Amino acid sequence: MKLLRFGPHGAEKPGLLDDMGRVRDLSAIVPDIGGDTLLPESLAALRELDIESLPIIDGKPQDDLRLGPCVGGIGKFVCIGLNYADHAEEAGMPIPEEPIIFNKWTSAVVGPNDDIQIPRGSVKTDWEVELGVVIGKPGVYIDEADAMAHVAGYCVVNDVSEREFQLERAGTWDKGKGCDTFGPTGPWLVTPDEVENVDDLDMWLDVDGERMQSGSTATLIFKIPELISYCSRFMSLQSGDVISTGTPPGVGMGHSPIRYLAGGEVVTLGIAGLGEQRSFVRPSASIA
Amino acid sequence: MKLLRFGPHGAEKPGLLDDMGRVRDLSAIVPDIGGDTLLPESLAALRELDIESLPIIDGKPQDDLRLGPCVGGIGKFVCIGLNYADHAEEAGMPIPEEPIIFNKWTSAVVGPNDDIQIPRGSVKTDWEVELGVVIGKPGVYIDEADAMAHVAGYCVVNDVSEREFQLERAGTWDKGKGCDTFGPTGPWLVTPDEVENVDDLDMWLDVDGERMQSGSTATLIFKIPELISYCSRFMSLQSGDVISTGTPPGVGMGHSPIRYLAGGEVVTLGIAGLGEQRSFVRPSASIA
Repeated sequence: MKLLRFGPHGAEKPGLLDDMGRVRDLSAIVPDIGGDTLLPESLAALRELDIESLPIIDGKPQDDLRLGPCVGGIGKFVCIGLNYADHAEEAGMPIPEEPIIFNKWTSAVVGPNDDIQIPRGSVKTDWEVELGVVIGKPGVYIDEADAMAHVAGYCVVNDVSEREFQLERAGTWDKGKGCDTFGPTGPWLVTPDEVENVDDLDMWLDVDGERMQSGSTATLIFKIPELISYCSRFMSLQSGDVISTGTPPGVGMGHSPIRYLAGGEVVTLGIAGLGEQRSFVRPSASIA
Repeated sequence: MKLLRFGPHGAEKPGLLDDMGRVRDLSAIVPDIGGDTLLPESLAALRELDIESLPIIDGKPQDDLRLGPCVGGIGKFVCIGLNYADHAEEAGMPIPEEPIIFNKWTSAVVGPNDDIQIPRGSVKTDWEVELGVVIGKPGVYIDEADAMAHVAGYCVVNDVSEREFQLERAGTWDKGKGCDTFGPTGPWLVTPDEVENVDDLDMWLDVDGERMQSGSTATLIFKIPELISYCSRFMSLQSGDVISTGTPPGVGMGHSPIRYLAGGEVVTLGIAGLGEQRSFVRPSASIA
């Protein structure tokens, strides 16, 4: 299944993408895509639905129908840092011996085609295409061997990052990762049965049509079961939590010459089988 | 007002502490203490209630009536690091030039008298009494001069911290701050009209009756208006977000000799006018 959320910001309804690329309304069946809807038994029940019987929503998703983030009410947005060896190299940082965990404030999460807002005072707003893993079955101290049973699905994440806020101010990375609009998530949450090999998905990101990042989940240092198990040693995981697994090389900070996002640019990105995002970049001067 | 949440974990109801120290039921008036209930207009409406008309709940709060965290559905639990000069010194870290921001995963939040669970593999679970500031009016890019209008109230927080997870593993502090039960919050959310001078509140923490921390908000490096304004440059703040403002000296890591929590100990802590917490410490061996 490809689950999604459509409608105005903050009032999204749950939906499903059918085989014809149309959005089917799930709002009579589940309250939202997130939380309890992502429990294994809930997803199993959704799978039994007669899709043809669900109302079709007017409008082409990603075009004249706005999509929200594909998960609603995210409790924790857990990010993994430097999880591609070649990205660690371009960032000038050592390859970590164990996963680096950091946080994206959940108020940063927006839809896959919503604008990215450059914050006030920013001169180093950067992009990061990432594979997001959405938790279905809750747990803590999860064994690696059991970890994949905790996955509700996968999605595209742009881990937008302000490098000066992240790296040149006191303390942790948290200042540069959670500004409003820094978490485009979606378009769809794709359930694992529709992903042939999550360890070999091509991913890419363009700025104004110029290819900046291209990579594959094949080169992840810490794979998904290890990440889930590892995170669950430091927190319990709940349905609707997201783990964003790190970015391949090609971020602006690693570009030669270094380049960052400017107002008016358009960022497009995608992961094979998980869909694409398209975000217009708003300059900081546009903030009221 | 002293607002609170009572009842079983995950099913708390909203309440209010009356002048006799009894809990009054607010569940017919508001859905929860958190989110929209903390907007200025909602708090103003609560202030107009005839308290005597509200049902009295049986049981003594903090004793035979369980209290939950005093804020429900916290969206962001923002913590400030090294915000007391003498604590920075005991931690062996320089006094920061601007506030250090880090994250406590919201799944760590528990009631003021709930057990603290030492995580698996922990040998350095430590305590930190802190003043929590609860956001009422949402905002972003908040001016310092306007910041206090965004405060719904204040509460006691124990920013429980695993020092090995926080400091001796790759990356940010986030691994050591958000283990389940690491965020006892409450007993009450005290509205600003009941706090005479938030910049001069005595605070203390004991382990098994032995005084470990004593301090006062008078020695905060960055004061509350500056913290709110500063945080709002890196994220928007929503009703029910919590900013925990840092801890005074006397943590286990700074003790001579260094000491950490052990299963069976009892941590008590409080801030003048904001109430007290009492947490039993469960050993990691108690994890099923």
